[in-house]
Parts: sequence; C-alpha cells; structure tokens
Amino acid sequence: MATVTLISDEEATPEVRAVYDDIRTTRGGDFINNFWRALAHDPALLKATWERLKAVMGPGEIDPLTKEMIYIAVSVANSCEYCAHSHTAAAKAKGMTEAQHGELLSVIGMASQTNALATALQVPVDDAFKV
Amino acid sequence: MATVTLISDEEATPEVRAVYDDIRTTRGGDFINNFWRALAHDPALLKATWERLKAVMGPGEIDPLTKEMIYIAVSVANSCEYCAHSHTAAAKAKGMTEAQHGELLSVIGMASQTNALATALQVPVDDAFKV
Amino acid sequence: MATVTLISDEEATPEVRAVYDDIRTTRGGDFINNFWRALAHDPALLKATWERLKAVMGPGEIDPLTKEMIYIAVSVANSCEYCAHSHTAAAKAKGMTEAQHGELLSVIGMASQTNALATALQVPVDDAFKV
Amino acid sequence: MATVTLISDEEATPEVRAVYDDIRTTRGGDFINNFWRALAHDPALLKATWERLKAVMGPGEIDPLTKEMIYIAVSVANSCEYCAHSHTAAAKAKGMTEAQHGELLSVIGMASQTNALATALQVPVDDAFKV
Amino acid sequence: MATVTLISDEEATPEVRAVYDDIRTTRGGDFINNFWRALAHDPALLKATWERLKAVMGPGEIDPLTKEMIYIAVSVANSCEYCAHSHTAAAKAKGMTEAQHGELLSVIGMASQTNALATALQVPVDDAFKV
Amino acid sequence: MATVTLISDEEATPEVRAVYDDIRTTRGGDFINNFWRALAHDPALLKATWERLKAVMGPGEIDPLTKEMIYIAVSVANSCEYCAHSHTAAAKAKGMTEAQHGELLSVIGMASQTNALATALQVPVDDAFKV
Repeated sequence: MATVTLISDEEATPEVRAVYDDIRTTRGGDFINNFWRALAHDPALLKATWERLKAVMGPGEIDPLTKEMIYIAVSVANSCEYCAHSHTAAAKAKGMTEAQHGELLSVIGMASQTNALATALQVPVDDAFKV
Repeated sequence: MATVTLISDEEATPEVRAVYDDIRTTRGGDFINNFWRALAHDPALLKATWERLKAVMGPGEIDPLTKEMIYIAVSVANSCEYCAHSHTAAAKAKGMTEAQHGELLSVIGMASQTNALATALQVPVDDAFKV
Repeated sequence: MATVTLISDEEATPEVRAVYDDIRTTRGGDFINNFWRALAHDPALLKATWERLKAVMGPGEIDPLTKEMIYIAVSVANSCEYCAHSHTAAAKAKGMTEAQHGELLSVIGMASQTNALATALQVPVDDAFKV
Repeated sequence: MATVTLISDEEATPEVRAVYDDIRTTRGGDFINNFWRALAHDPALLKATWERLKAVMGPGEIDPLTKEMIYIAVSVANSCEYCAHSHTAAAKAKGMTEAQHGELLSVIGMASQTNALATALQVPVDDAFKV
Repeated sequence: MATVTLISDEEATPEVRAVYDDIRTTRGGDFINNFWRALAHDPALLKATWERLKAVMGPGEIDPLTKEMIYIAVSVANSCEYCAHSHTAAAKAKGMTEAQHGELLSVIGMASQTNALATALQVPVDDAFKV
Repeated sequence: MATVTLISDEEATPEVRAVYDDIRTTRGGDFINNFWRALAHDPALLKATWERLKAVMGPGEIDPLTKEMIYIAVSVANSCEYCAHSHTAAAKAKGMTEAQHGELLSVIGMASQTNALATALQVPVDDAFKV
C-alpha cells in the first residue's frame, strides 16, 4: 500500500543495514517499523532522518514521554495516519496512562478549536505578547 | 484588522462581563487578551469556549506547562499566528526556559518532517502498533 | 507585501482588462480587490480562476450566502488570512447576520475539534456510513 | 485499527452509558457510531464533546443541513477521513440532494484553490475589508 | 469506501462519457482512474476539473515531470492519501528515477520542518524579500 | 513581532557565529535572513537545520531552481507566510521567470483543488497505483 516497497534486512545495502543496526541497538529490540523500511530507498535520507530523530527525542530538558505527546499533537494536526498510530504506541510504551492520554486529547481538541476561531476572527496579536 | 471589532469592558453585555470577570479572577490579573474580546460578539460561544478552556488547561494528570507546550505544537501545525504568539507568551509565563523552548521547537520540526515523509510514502501501519 | 506587485488598471493588458471589466459588471461596482490584481501577472490563470469562481458561486441548488459561509469554513481550516477577511466581508455584504456569524464560528470550532479527535483516535469508518 | 479499543454498551461505565443513552434519545435510533465509542475511554471528554455538539448542531439561525455542509467543508480541509464519511452520511440523512452535494464539492474545490493562490501571492488585505 | 459510488462506463451519461473519452485519448490508454469515476456524479464539475487539469499539466514553461513533483509536494502537505498514490505513480510513469524520488522527499521533509519553525518563531519577513 | 528576539552578529555566540559565517560563504553575500537570526536562540538547532538545508538544496538529481519551486509548493500548502516570501524571493534569484511563476501557481492551485475533491469523495486507491 506504500508508494514504495519496504526494504527487508536481506535487501538492505550495507549503509541501510548500519542504520537498522543502530535502531536496534538504541531501542533495545529487534523490531524495525515500516517507516524506516520505506525510507531505506534513499540511504542518505534514512541516515539523516534517523540520526536527527535520535538526537531530538533523547533525554534533555523535556522528558521523553512529554516529547512523544508533543509529537502526537503535531502528527494529529498534520493528519498523519501512520504517525498517530506509531507515536501513540510509543507514548504508551514510555508509560503514558489512559488518564494522560485523555488529557492529551482534550488539549489537542481545545487547541484545534481555538486555532480555528482565532483564524476566523483574524484576532490581532496583543502588544503584551510581543517580544 | 480582525474580521469583527473587539468588545471593550464598556461595550460588554452582562453575560460577556461575567466571563471577563471570571477570566480576571482565574488568571489573577486585569488583562483580557484580544481573543476573548473578539469572541465576545457571540456571548454563548465566548462562555462555552472559556469554560472548556479553563477545565482543560487546569491542573490534572499533565502539568500546566506541558499542556501549554502541547498547545503550541498544535497551533504551529495549524499555522495559527495569533495562537503561536499567545501560547508562547503563556508558556514563558509558566516558566518555560529558553532551553525547553529550543527542544520544543526541535520536536515540532522533527515531527513535521517525518509526518510529511510518512504521508509521501503512505507507510502502512505496522501490526505491532494496532490495538 | 505581496510576493508580486498589484496590477493597476493602467498597467493591465487587454486580456487582464477584460477580466477586470467582467468583475465590475458582474458585481455591479468599481472595486477590484487585491486578489485579482495580484493574480493578473498571469492573465490565463486570472481568467480561468475568475470564470470558474463566477460559475461556482452564482445561483444554484445552494444559495449564495450559504456558499460564502462554506467558503469561509474552508478558508479558516486552510489558515488563509486574506480569504478569511475577504469572504467574511462578502458574507456580510450578502446579509450574514451577527447571529449567523456566531453560529458559523461555532460549527467551525466544533468541527475542528472533532476532526482532531477522530484523527488522534484513528476511528475506523462505521459500516453504516459506507456507500 | 483505532489507537484505542471501542467501548461496547456492556463495557460502558454508568457515566458513558448516560451519554450513549442521550445520543440514542436525541437521534431517535439505537446506533452509536464509532467516534463516540472510541472517545468513551475518557468519560469527561466524551460528555463535554457530545453536549457541545448537540448544542451547536441543533436548530438555530442556520438550518441543520447547512450546518452539516459546513462541517463537511471543515473536515475535508482538515483531511479527516472518518469525518468526511460520517458527515457526508449525516448530510444525506438530512436531505442533501446529489445536486447540492455536487455544488458543495465545487465550492470546496474552488475555495481550496483560491486559498492556495492567495497564500502563495501573500495578497495584502484590502482596506475595504477591514472592520 | 468512497462517499459516493464509482460511475462505470455503462452508467455514464453522454456528458460523462465524453470526458471519459477525452481522458482516454489524451492519455493514450483505456484506464480511467477512480478519481474521475467518483467525480462523475456531477458532470459539470467533472468536465471543469478535467479540462483545467489538462490545460495546467500539459507542456509549458515547466516540464511535465517537474509539474508532477510539485503536485506530489502539495498533495503530501495537504495529507491527501489518494493523491500521494496517484501522482507518485504518474511521476514514475513520466520517468522519475529513484534518486529523484529520494531528493523530492528530502526537499518536502526539509520544507515541512522549516515551515513549522518559521511559524513557531513567527519570523518577520525581511525587507529584502518584499517586492 | 517574532516570538523571540533576532540575534545580531554582535550577540552571536561563537557557535552561532560559525553558522552565520558558513551561510555567508555558501551564499556568497553578507545577508543573513531573519529565519536564521530567530533560530539562533538554540545553536544546536540552528546548526542542524542549516547543515541539512545546505545538503538538501544543493546540486543533485533535481536542479536547484526546481527544488525552490517544490519548496514554495510545500510552504504554500502549509500556509507559511514567511516561507512563501523567502522562497519566492530565492526562486526569483535563481532565475524563475514570470511565466514559470505563473505555471507554478497554476499547478499549486490545481493540486489544492483536486486534493480537496479526492478527500471529500474518499476515493479508494486504484489497484494500478499500488506498488
């Protein structure tokens, strides 16, 4: 159903295989999800995307679970079906509770609504908000 | 520049004034930002939106600053100019550091990129992600 | 501020001038809004867009005011600043009352919210909705 | 395929069951569509969403069928697959004819096109449109 | 799964059949893809859309393959599942190599990322970019 | 007007200054546009974004002007005001003619329209398009 075939381990070039290996090592498991197998048609794009993702989503000033919830929020607003599934699964794996999931959905729904209202009304930015 | 005029305190009907009062009490300050003053043309919509916002953004399973960051993420993906300004200001008021802001932007940028790639490739959802 | 200059009547080629004339005749006034003056850099695109707009927005099975409200709804969801302004002005000129405007905003806000929730939840389409 | 399971009548908590009952009473039928069954994981969000939807989509200054067509317009612009299906079915149930459906699609297509053109050209808002 | 049935050759009215014939002649093949068969419920919309598409996508100042890649870019940003599939297939049929496909994806991913960053930061337009 | 201040040369840390220098060297001019000056609040994000942009937009299988046109297409569909301005200016600097600009707009407008129609109709993907 993808617009390209999915690259199996056997079909992977050495450059692709190195990325697959690093995904496995970083995540501590054998599973490589379809996103990377589709991206593998362009090894340079695969490598740049994975390395940036690893740097961005790792530990930092914002904790990993919060980052996943932010990722879900962007993915939903961008209507990305695959991303809604994969990042909801990732957030659950990182400990998102059902109550947190419900609050996340409530914030996403609220923001979507007021975004539309502010755009429809073309509300001018308050001076107080200007840097 | 809005598509409607902004309703001042003097022009506010009693129903609108009651919402303005509750915003001031809840936030502990005199400032009413333009979003509410534009929305005040429809008192019922103003009241429903404010009361839901108050319920959603208050304390819960997700802390208020994290909720603001999620709100920014949705607002950016929805290209809402007013909302990017108002919620970035709100997040800073709730203690978002410059380092957290940078990480938030990094996650938003990363998600936007992989959302587009997953959509372009029409990646099928992995069985492992299905509930 | 546009990415192109706006084409005045004096600068208009005969092909552009013919479209400007038709806009004036159709709308019964002298005013040509900036959208057409920007589009006039490509006379063929100007003409195709205007003629299609005239055909689509004219009388039919859906009345002209309802069509303007639908146009606003799409423009808001697409975050088009210019279009939110121009089509809200057009709807008011066609008789949209303040009460109708408030209901329109309420529906747009509601739809934006449930769109996000349905996408976040990846709700499967009910068999009952399938044709 | 949803990111959560769908809550059957048997699994519903009393709070969820009360909403299901109100949906059935309001709509005059036994059918509860999947959107509500997915949302039921968070009873407070379910209740707030349903009650607001009932208030917004009921009789008012804009007739119910027009509201459904506006809902479809927003849902399409937001690329919501589930919503396109469910609200097209709802509009047909409320009497949308094939001719009205065709005109609705024509307006949505036209608006999508001019939204993109106005954004690409960054057309400045005419003074005449300013409130 | 569509919100309307697909119109077969046998069900086509003479006006629809004329468009189907022109699609076959123009493309040099018998295949009519589902988009046109769904649109055929409104013969006037079908005809207007096809004739405009034929005019826009034909030879001109930009070569046909480049036009398809631009079409893919818009379709991805608009999260159009059908369009991502149909225009990726069309680009491949017009000679898009795997290396070009990879670069196209890289540009789409990059643009999506910086679009989000510029919106989040609400970067003011430089004077140097103003016309 | 940005949500952060713009970092001047004098305020730049050595890490930021190194990126500014590379932008100047790569582009062969002294001008640093506001996007980079806003992003400079997070030196790591600035550096990662600039280096990836330089790699993606440089010579390859797709020529630089075509890449700019694809960038404009994505930016328009994402409603990025800053990006529409900056990349239209960049495309003109790389030789985009007025005729090419008009065709680019025509393709973007056409795609936006058919994206909306395909989504509204929820057209199923043809078997012929499946890989």
